[in-house]
Amino acid sequence: MKFEHLGIAVANLEEANAIFSKIFASSPYKTETVESEGVTTSFFHTGNGKMELLEATREDSPIAKFIAKKGPGIHHVAFEVEDIRAEMQRLKQEGFHLLNEEPKRGADNKWVCFLHPKDTQSVLIELCQEIL
Amino acid sequence: MKFEHLGIAVANLEEANAIFSKIFASSPYKTETVESEGVTTSFFHTGNGKMELLEATREDSPIAKFIAKKGPGIHHVAFEVEDIRAEMQRLKQEGFHLLNEEPKRGADNKWVCFLHPKDTQSVLIELCQEIL
Repeated sequence: MKFEHLGIAVANLEEANAIFSKIFASSPYKTETVESEGVTTSFFHTGNGKMELLEATREDSPIAKFIAKKGPGIHHVAFEVEDIRAEMQRLKQEGFHLLNEEPKRGADNKWVCFLHPKDTQSVLIELCQEIL
Repeated sequence: MKFEHLGIAVANLEEANAIFSKIFASSPYKTETVESEGVTTSFFHTGNGKMELLEATREDSPIAKFIAKKGPGIHHVAFEVEDIRAEMQRLKQEGFHLLNEEPKRGADNKWVCFLHPKDTQSVLIELCQEIL
């Protein structure tokens, strides 16, 4: 399991892109909308792994709900795995609850699965695997 | 600027170590107390960068205050830089506020400096550089 990216919820992607472009001294290398999740995302390279900014595209998006409740900030951390189904099975057997029982399509051409934060010290953890 | 680690605030380090040992299928490779910051930390390798768990050692520790206000969860993200003073200067000129004007000693043999989260979409960002 390898750190893949950190997801940061933002209210305004354009403003947040400008801020993080200054911090990283580089522009996002890609912007992508994932309709099924109700988000538009941008990605920055950080040498080791990526930073993903997420803006909600609609009010019932998980990111809109997160921002309404907590404001902008770190939303999730994603780890790349070699076999997402095997890893989901392993973690279920360890007693973790999955937010989706089947891998679903996420941003950046990945299969993704989230672990329930109640089991993980309130850290929302995404498992991801490149879609081949 | 390169992702170095993600810092996770926890109420009980022993319990949290057990949880993350299951997730990463490996034990923390080091535990360290930083008296000046009022924390005991443990570190996990994740292939790309590290995960740091932080438990407060006293009530006035920043981690104790964070837990009291928000509960456990992701506390900060750290990026390694080659020249921390130069990077602090660059980011100040870009309009970011620093939480410490001089680099201070952090865990894991690093000089560290934090950016004020009010400028960074509420993300607490640590700059760090290995102490040589």
